[in-house]
Amino acid sequence: MESINIGLAGLGTVAQGFLEIFGQKKRVLSDKLGRELKIAKVASRSQKVDLEEFGAIFSTELSSLVEDPAIDVVIELIGGEQDALGLISAALKKNKHVVTANKEVIAKHGNSFRGEIDSGQLRFEAAVAGAIPILQGIGVGMVANDFSSITGIVNGTSNYILSNMSIEAASFEESLKQAQKLGFAEADPGFDVDGIDAAHKLTILMALAYGQPFSFDKVVTEGISHITSSDIQYASELGFAIKPVAVVRRSEDTLAAMVYPALVGFDRILSRVNGVMNAVEVESDYAGRLFFSGPGAGSLATASAVVSDLGLIARNQGSVYPSLMGTEKLGVSYPDQSTSCCYLRFDVVDEKGIFARITGALSDSGISIDEVFQKNRDGGRASIVMITHPAREKDLEDCLSNVGKFGELLQPIQRIRVLS
Amino acid sequence: MESINIGLAGLGTVAQGFLEIFGQKKRVLSDKLGRELKIAKVASRSQKVDLEEFGAIFSTELSSLVEDPAIDVVIELIGGEQDALGLISAALKKNKHVVTANKEVIAKHGNSFRGEIDSGQLRFEAAVAGAIPILQGIGVGMVANDFSSITGIVNGTSNYILSNMSIEAASFEESLKQAQKLGFAEADPGFDVDGIDAAHKLTILMALAYGQPFSFDKVVTEGISHITSSDIQYASELGFAIKPVAVVRRSEDTLAAMVYPALVGFDRILSRVNGVMNAVEVESDYAGRLFFSGPGAGSLATASAVVSDLGLIARNQGSVYPSLMGTEKLGVSYPDQSTSCCYLRFDVVDEKGIFARITGALSDSGISIDEVFQKNRDGGRASIVMITHPAREKDLEDCLSNVGKFGELLQPIQRIRVLS
Repeated sequence: MESINIGLAGLGTVAQGFLEIFGQKKRVLSDKLGRELKIAKVASRSQKVDLEEFGAIFSTELSSLVEDPAIDVVIELIGGEQDALGLISAALKKNKHVVTANKEVIAKHGNSFRGEIDSGQLRFEAAVAGAIPILQGIGVGMVANDFSSITGIVNGTSNYILSNMSIEAASFEESLKQAQKLGFAEADPGFDVDGIDAAHKLTILMALAYGQPFSFDKVVTEGISHITSSDIQYASELGFAIKPVAVVRRSEDTLAAMVYPALVGFDRILSRVNGVMNAVEVESDYAGRLFFSGPGAGSLATASAVVSDLGLIARNQGSVYPSLMGTEKLGVSYPDQSTSCCYLRFDVVDEKGIFARITGALSDSGISIDEVFQKNRDGGRASIVMITHPAREKDLEDCLSNVGKFGELLQPIQRIRVLS
Repeated sequence: MESINIGLAGLGTVAQGFLEIFGQKKRVLSDKLGRELKIAKVASRSQKVDLEEFGAIFSTELSSLVEDPAIDVVIELIGGEQDALGLISAALKKNKHVVTANKEVIAKHGNSFRGEIDSGQLRFEAAVAGAIPILQGIGVGMVANDFSSITGIVNGTSNYILSNMSIEAASFEESLKQAQKLGFAEADPGFDVDGIDAAHKLTILMALAYGQPFSFDKVVTEGISHITSSDIQYASELGFAIKPVAVVRRSEDTLAAMVYPALVGFDRILSRVNGVMNAVEVESDYAGRLFFSGPGAGSLATASAVVSDLGLIARNQGSVYPSLMGTEKLGVSYPDQSTSCCYLRFDVVDEKGIFARITGALSDSGISIDEVFQKNRDGGRASIVMITHPAREKDLEDCLSNVGKFGELLQPIQRIRVLS
């Protein structure tokens, strides 16, 4: 049986998951794949894991993986941007296969590797939605299809925080602390709660689904830190969950991609994806609406996707993605979300006529209201909450900037889009 | 660009979907896959579709596909058992690739083709759960994983009927008629509502997920025709939907597979899969619980999965399934479902003491009750409805056969398992 020599970069969470799987399944996997799998070398800053059972040589030098001609596949699990980029780049130049879970590098620098992605030399199933085989699903399972939209919950931290705010009626800050305590959020949570991580993943989904260059700079992101537990409560009364979504839509020859918190109707399965779970919903011309969900992060779940890529290499299979250098060129525009339904919350001094003034201003701008209620609160304050019918974003913005000046307003107006 | 010559067998619903996709996407697909795709020949009983745009030769003889040395891939979409089996068999012997959507042939005769399945010469993604790429998902995406259970809603007709009974408060018979009217059920609905079709699909899932021979004869099936709209109403009050599930479970070195209607808690995404939609939930050691849903039938959706298999052939990719001749041998036993929670409905003459007699008999048999209520109905009748705690099936059966003799019982006792 021909063997495959693996060079593993990193000994963090995902790498440890990979070693655990490898330790338990080396024999079975080699049989399944018809190739002897061997971890030849591991490179990391420090040797915090016992490598004896793997018979692997340890090195603190990443370059030792690249320079070793015996290594066939480099598995990059060090994370971060520059070192990982350097390693991936160097390994590809030495004609090695590369498997990575690094969404940042692929989203931001994938265009440097389009040839290697097209040939299957560079693979990254683990970079999007953890254990869910979504890139293969789009690239192989749905190869016949064009996609009108892809909607994902692809950041487990944000989903955990919003779910916790819903279940525990907790604030954003409390829920973030809880997520950090449980290891679901970094000390610096900006990447997650500001939507950057989800934007990396959406960039990759968009490039592969549409066979287009990676366009991270065109993804518009809106974080979740302005969502309050009252919003979640009110949305629930209106029949919606609030979910951190990442959406790419195609309209004619243009793509537009955006990460934002959205109201998702309880009748949609997506609204039921809670905690750190991820999900991706794909709207297609032939296969209809396909939905995938599962663990989006975690040591073993992410490593499971890494092994999947390794399996494709072991089976000598080419790329499972559509060509990124396809002939059909789509433009990628900033999303204008030209019309959408919106959730609006106005916190006001409960004075006579304020309800009429606000709804009147909306009406004057041609924005009609689907549902509205007023909640009176202590101290003569009230919250006026509504869902609009589809309205042009520009019209709504103009109108809200006008209403925002009303003296009765106690806080900036809250506006959250409804997922269409 | 090297070309692939396709021989298409059948001109029914799925074949027409295939031709529609082919007509629209031939150019794009050939580019994506790097091979010129060509429908060389179509064989069917009658030429009910205009084939001119495809430049395909028409024949009424299936054998003409097999005998033509220019044909590389036979796509079998005639359905049924014997003719399809003969065609698949003959085409494989002539070293052609075969793609089929025929779950019956694979479930019942797959063991004759284990070598061809292992080599990727015979593929059947469309045979299970329509457009959902579940076989690839298990075989490639989850290659690292062992599966503790796989639970599917894989028969759209049954799911439509139970969903309709729930939404419209309609009877089984009315809902079946509605399904037939909409083209979701055959004139002879036995295959669907008796669980046979789901058992075919479960047989395939079980074989591929565990790398074992096909064991259709070991799948126990229970149909849905005994479910009443009252059961659906009562289950709903207790927090459950009733869904037609197909389940394979592994316990140690034994597999057990069963198709049955089950109560599924509203907290599970599976309970939200309605109408003709299909879903598969996979419990694994590393990837955790992965969930896939989408259209399980329909012309274009099924054809989308056929094209996916064709794409793998065009890309010269080997099998995407684990070997069916793996070294690890699991036994396949008849499921004893040794302990399960059950929903029970006793329709009785509402006489004093009957509630106590029934609950007393259960208690005497060591069966404890989780929830129970009594609904009084017209004419001095009552329904006593309950969910048991986990109980040994044998104990419950013995007890129910005893209670079944009570003079107050107006109908046989209804027993529906709760999905664990």
